[in-house]
Amino acid sequence: MPTDSKRLTRFECFRDLSDDQCSAVAELTNEACFYPQTELFAEGAEGSRIYLLSDGEVEILYNIGEEGPTHVDTVGAGEILGCSSLLPPYVYTSSARSLSPIETLIIDSFALRKLMEEDCNLGFAIQGQLIQMLLDRIVDLRLEL
Amino acid sequence: MPTDSKRLTRFECFRDLSDDQCSAVAELTNEACFYPQTELFAEGAEGSRIYLLSDGEVEILYNIGEEGPTHVDTVGAGEILGCSSLLPPYVYTSSARSLSPIETLIIDSFALRKLMEEDCNLGFAIQGQLIQMLLDRIVDLRLEL
Repeated sequence: MPTDSKRLTRFECFRDLSDDQCSAVAELTNEACFYPQTELFAEGAEGSRIYLLSDGEVEILYNIGEEGPTHVDTVGAGEILGCSSLLPPYVYTSSARSLSPIETLIIDSFALRKLMEEDCNLGFAIQGQLIQMLLDRIVDLRLEL
Repeated sequence: MPTDSKRLTRFECFRDLSDDQCSAVAELTNEACFYPQTELFAEGAEGSRIYLLSDGEVEILYNIGEEGPTHVDTVGAGEILGCSSLLPPYVYTSSARSLSPIETLIIDSFALRKLMEEDCNLGFAIQGQLIQMLLDRIVDLRLEL
């Protein structure tokens, strides 16, 4: 069942969309909860879903050499996961696994890509917010180094 | 004098643009060299220029508490600096200073924003490449932690 668009606008990324644009994205979005230690997506797999984390913690892992999936970061409520599924070559560049019980909104990446391409203004607005979010994440990471 | 669009397409961010789109961006772009220890932009200042680094090294600094500008990262050839000037509130979120002699392309941020808004497909394409670049930068930063 599509989610209420009000749940979507809790995420900064969608805050500046018009009501109609927000409803269109909400149509592609479902709510889901997961137990701890659930793999949301795997590095290298086809990117089919974007996860908006409403509650809980998720760890990000990279395949590093022979070590296999290695923890590189932990993200919390408000974060968006799986952004690489919006861009060519449409594969996940990391793995993500829940560290606690989590609540998420899940957006169908294929459908969102189609919507963003068809409605260029919507695509432009969402990508602008994504860039903002990624720039903020870079600030946080640099300050941790 | 506007730069040759071939110099622009050396940067991944502009590689997928059509010839016409690339020429339009090249019209807004100039070439410049700077001595070491030149401040390219300051955190909090109005974002008026994007720098594409062709050669040399630039350090990124953040104002942290009472310490003042503090080194947080070093970037090299191929990197793009000042992306935050493309997004509201259009101010630089960091300072940047050359560590060596550098060669850059400089794009007028105001004009590029206008062009991206007027030609939504161009805007969407450039944003997509920026997102790709920021995702790559996040991978690098996470691996350094």
